[in-house]
Amino acid sequence: MPVVVQSIPRADSAVIDGLARAGAATVHEAQGRRGCLAPHLRPIWTGAQIAGSAVTISAPPGDNWMLHVAIEQVQPGDILVLAPTSPCEDGYFGDLLATSAMARGCRGLVIEAGVRDVRDLTAMGFPVWSKAISAQGTVKATLGDVNLPLVIGGQMVHPGDVIVADDDGVVVVRRDEAADVLAAAEKRLAAEESKRAKLAAGVLGLDLYDMRGALAAKGLTYV
Amino acid sequence: MPVVVQSIPRADSAVIDGLARAGAATVHEAQGRRGCLAPHLRPIWTGAQIAGSAVTISAPPGDNWMLHVAIEQVQPGDILVLAPTSPCEDGYFGDLLATSAMARGCRGLVIEAGVRDVRDLTAMGFPVWSKAISAQGTVKATLGDVNLPLVIGGQMVHPGDVIVADDDGVVVVRRDEAADVLAAAEKRLAAEESKRAKLAAGVLGLDLYDMRGALAAKGLTYV
Amino acid sequence: MPVVVQSIPRADSAVIDGLARAGAATVHEAQGRRGCLAPHLRPIWTGAQIAGSAVTISAPPGDNWMLHVAIEQVQPGDILVLAPTSPCEDGYFGDLLATSAMARGCRGLVIEAGVRDVRDLTAMGFPVWSKAISAQGTVKATLGDVNLPLVIGGQMVHPGDVIVADDDGVVVVRRDEAADVLAAAEKRLAAEESKRAKLAAGVLGLDLYDMRGALAAKGLTYV
Amino acid sequence: MPVVVQSIPRADSAVIDGLARAGAATVHEAQGRRGCLAPHLRPIWTGAQIAGSAVTISAPPGDNWMLHVAIEQVQPGDILVLAPTSPCEDGYFGDLLATSAMARGCRGLVIEAGVRDVRDLTAMGFPVWSKAISAQGTVKATLGDVNLPLVIGGQMVHPGDVIVADDDGVVVVRRDEAADVLAAAEKRLAAEESKRAKLAAGVLGLDLYDMRGALAAKGLTYV
Amino acid sequence: MPVVVQSIPRADSAVIDGLARAGAATVHEAQGRRGCLAPHLRPIWTGAQIAGSAVTISAPPGDNWMLHVAIEQVQPGDILVLAPTSPCEDGYFGDLLATSAMARGCRGLVIEAGVRDVRDLTAMGFPVWSKAISAQGTVKATLGDVNLPLVIGGQMVHPGDVIVADDDGVVVVRRDEAADVLAAAEKRLAAEESKRAKLAAGVLGLDLYDMRGALAAKGLTYV
Amino acid sequence: MPVVVQSIPRADSAVIDGLARAGAATVHEAQGRRGCLAPHLRPIWTGAQIAGSAVTISAPPGDNWMLHVAIEQVQPGDILVLAPTSPCEDGYFGDLLATSAMARGCRGLVIEAGVRDVRDLTAMGFPVWSKAISAQGTVKATLGDVNLPLVIGGQMVHPGDVIVADDDGVVVVRRDEAADVLAAAEKRLAAEESKRAKLAAGVLGLDLYDMRGALAAKGLTYV
Repeated sequence: MPVVVQSIPRADSAVIDGLARAGAATVHEAQGRRGCLAPHLRPIWTGAQIAGSAVTISAPPGDNWMLHVAIEQVQPGDILVLAPTSPCEDGYFGDLLATSAMARGCRGLVIEAGVRDVRDLTAMGFPVWSKAISAQGTVKATLGDVNLPLVIGGQMVHPGDVIVADDDGVVVVRRDEAADVLAAAEKRLAAEESKRAKLAAGVLGLDLYDMRGALAAKGLTYV
Repeated sequence: MPVVVQSIPRADSAVIDGLARAGAATVHEAQGRRGCLAPHLRPIWTGAQIAGSAVTISAPPGDNWMLHVAIEQVQPGDILVLAPTSPCEDGYFGDLLATSAMARGCRGLVIEAGVRDVRDLTAMGFPVWSKAISAQGTVKATLGDVNLPLVIGGQMVHPGDVIVADDDGVVVVRRDEAADVLAAAEKRLAAEESKRAKLAAGVLGLDLYDMRGALAAKGLTYV
Repeated sequence: MPVVVQSIPRADSAVIDGLARAGAATVHEAQGRRGCLAPHLRPIWTGAQIAGSAVTISAPPGDNWMLHVAIEQVQPGDILVLAPTSPCEDGYFGDLLATSAMARGCRGLVIEAGVRDVRDLTAMGFPVWSKAISAQGTVKATLGDVNLPLVIGGQMVHPGDVIVADDDGVVVVRRDEAADVLAAAEKRLAAEESKRAKLAAGVLGLDLYDMRGALAAKGLTYV
Repeated sequence: MPVVVQSIPRADSAVIDGLARAGAATVHEAQGRRGCLAPHLRPIWTGAQIAGSAVTISAPPGDNWMLHVAIEQVQPGDILVLAPTSPCEDGYFGDLLATSAMARGCRGLVIEAGVRDVRDLTAMGFPVWSKAISAQGTVKATLGDVNLPLVIGGQMVHPGDVIVADDDGVVVVRRDEAADVLAAAEKRLAAEESKRAKLAAGVLGLDLYDMRGALAAKGLTYV
Repeated sequence: MPVVVQSIPRADSAVIDGLARAGAATVHEAQGRRGCLAPHLRPIWTGAQIAGSAVTISAPPGDNWMLHVAIEQVQPGDILVLAPTSPCEDGYFGDLLATSAMARGCRGLVIEAGVRDVRDLTAMGFPVWSKAISAQGTVKATLGDVNLPLVIGGQMVHPGDVIVADDDGVVVVRRDEAADVLAAAEKRLAAEESKRAKLAAGVLGLDLYDMRGALAAKGLTYV
Repeated sequence: MPVVVQSIPRADSAVIDGLARAGAATVHEAQGRRGCLAPHLRPIWTGAQIAGSAVTISAPPGDNWMLHVAIEQVQPGDILVLAPTSPCEDGYFGDLLATSAMARGCRGLVIEAGVRDVRDLTAMGFPVWSKAISAQGTVKATLGDVNLPLVIGGQMVHPGDVIVADDDGVVVVRRDEAADVLAAAEKRLAAEESKRAKLAAGVLGLDLYDMRGALAAKGLTYV
């Protein structure tokens, strides 16, 4: 019984945009080193740094039918998140689907499979994090689900969770934790500023973070 | 009994150039979703989009002797296609071989192994699709074959087949099907133009491709 | 008994700089096709070509504490070389550690694990060769060793060995062989100049390297 | 804030035992082809076929401290389910931990990492499904969580979900669906009996499942 | 246009049985070190050593419909050979299909994907060489081809080619070369007998194969 | 300049045999969690537990010539240790080489590549730890080295180091540390006896190892 959930909750857009500015690594730390998707999900072009609400898609291997279904559910600011039901590297998504997604206000795609037309996608400025790039196409024969929870890159993603993605990879933030995570991330960023200046001036991390005692206590020996 | 086949048939050069313009993904679809090489064959630099006649090389692991033999067989417009007889990531090919190949009119290299001098190859504008980049060199001790059929990236390639390669990967087209595939590809490209405009205007793929009935018939449920 | 060796020998800086100019592939050949690290160690940005003395770090999986310890041992011209004690792709290193390392004169990082903040590292011009890019952070709970010999990318590296790295990958040169390897590399580069000109003029490698007799003796048949 | 949840719900033991008899493949089908963990989770010895309630463990890479914590939470009939917070193949578990787990009535271990002492574990009859076998040990330095939901083999597992494992791999059944899934599985097994007899007698699946019309309608051509 | 070719040529059954006795490694050598499928194709149980005529199946990822079609084409002594059109590890084949295949006289299955019910398949004595074992099932929604040439494990297989498989893996022999390859294999086996006796008696391979001169000529130095 | 070192030091045979009895996991722990080769080195049959002095072989990919050279250097109690100079899975070693090696008193083979004739090797009781099983043969065209230090499975092995291998994998012990490691291993084994009895009686590891305080100090929370 394949299902499309049409109404999903979303986080506050100002919070989402704040998480985008913080970036994946900082957000990951700010929420207690959780939520990082596996590093095989790589950007097809570098320089994008986005956040948005997850519209989730579970699709069979080699079958992209549900992408068409999902795009109808996209609202401006959303990010498509697709996981195949078994591992696949086929090219599920190309320039026509990207054109359609952009027309709906979609900010990007995270897909644990392949995409194609990457030169066009790059020219269009549509960001994608994928497991592969492949000219190999897909069929439209078997249904899947839209907006049910799914696992991608080893992490659970619920529809409406916040996806944060940049050149370092992809992190998911639970929707109801998003505001707290943003607050923690901003605190972290502020603290990094002064650390960066000190480290640039030659202060060692050993001293800045006061590590020498703990290292000695653990038994570190200098020879 | 290692062999070099000196005379191979080639497709019509206008057809080959047309296939280059269509690109890998379109050509793959145009021939019925066949012929796509495995996505681990990636370009060493992005932006090249070529087609050419395959000069095939079967070489032992870690031994690039046959590349020198093959270059003598290259005619302008050809693409070197090398598969090792067992998996290998060594750097079989670098700037000197590329200089020699370009002097013969070679358009590029597809190799299920490694290459090196990639900064030079990029500067020279010589395109390569490879499985790896590796400074690890090879020896010249054991023979292989030139211009026999071989398997690369999970696809059979006969000498003289048309290789189409771009940022999406590599596709092989049977030589005697090349003209028909080009006709189908051009038809496909023309049809995509109007689709793209409609999708950009916000028409959904669900409507453009008239999918709603088929989805409902399969049992898709909206909640 | 985790250990930090504070005093390591280093090669002559002119020799090190000469090896940087020769590059990884040439240096690999010049020392008898030895010393090439596995090709899964890839640059996070292209165009860097460096050499430096190895400051080695052995660290537990998912724990970057020893990087802070190691940076204190860095002298201008050094390269940090980190291998985890079991395979790991976490992001051990980011922009703060890079800031600190650069303040000490560190020329780069070779790490058989992950890094993050890659956009910042690229903007800073700090070169890294890594196995992965990952936003997933690390802890600081368990000790390791600094400046003991270690294995990375399938090669043994002793502290003070010369690391040569560019877009083709990473090569290690034994410290006491560095001058001889440089001499061999420069000889090799000089010889390549005239070869390149001849190949560009259309001379075949088969003739330039006088291979036809050896090929025939091995049984190569032309049909 | 690492946490141990001490009280978890469990499915009915008769249902659990019924699911064990049905086996992984049948249970997977019976719940709509969902819940199958990735096939890299393999049994260390063949022939075991078990089901039990999941006691979940999230542990850092290369650190098995939380296994000791988790064993205290085991009740007879439980199965330990461990996922590292980043990929790891170290040997987290051996004969001493198995002795302790068996003393608590633990039925087995599913671990997306390595185990060791596999000869002893086999002799003890303690079943394990793991990603690797490795003599490489772990430390006890960093905390994790016990009995929080986690992702393993690409599937979400909640504490108290039913794990079904045999030579075909591992499947997870939501606790509140376990009785329904068992009913569907038993129906499926009953139906297979008569099918098996007919197929053994030479009836073709094409006829038994009445596929010829659908194949023809899709365009299958016999030549 | 998916196709089933109903009439395929087969090699002489006495030749096929002779190739089975010779085994995969010997046959591979006897035909000039060609035809070995990639080593990721492993037996699900050890001890089987078979040969048979290939009935080839090209199937979409995660879709086993064509297996039912193919079984009708099996004649006694055939081996099913399935390659998915893009990489897949799902369990395409289990005990019901094996029951049906055995009823047709099928000798085994070589599949570049997954199988399940491996305990049953082992008990039934039905040999399988596969890329994976997986409880994850497949659908029946998309057509493929039966008895067209295909690529599996990096080798081309034509319908009616001879498949030789044992604990060392799988080798394909061209149908029209089968008799010659058998003759070469038997010659090879006969020669091995006397070699084995001499080596067991302590004669070194260096002397038995008269290698010392060639090694010295290549520059091997004893220190 | 390929080299064969004919005279290598070996550890005391009683120490070697003691290390065999302790097994890989215990020895690994006894020497401070060092020396474990990567877990992709797996036994081709289970149940062997051996130790011996390493005779090391560095060989080109797909070329087993140096194995013949190395066997002459084997003394009773030695173990052959082969690493290819670039990754390879070909079948370097089969029953004839095993016959020859056994005639010299060789105890087994550790090879970061493939072997074949595994049914014969199993029947002969010749233990092998390899990265692959493959019918694909090798050539004899290029030299390598015997009894130089090499890296295998991510570990440095010097000729004469002690190799300990069992179903858990392979560990290397520095020759001059072998006696100390044995002493530590035996102490460890003795301590495990009483622990095992207590754990079997239901004592928790948390109490046996007195972990509760440290866990609480780290912040572990029970809910």
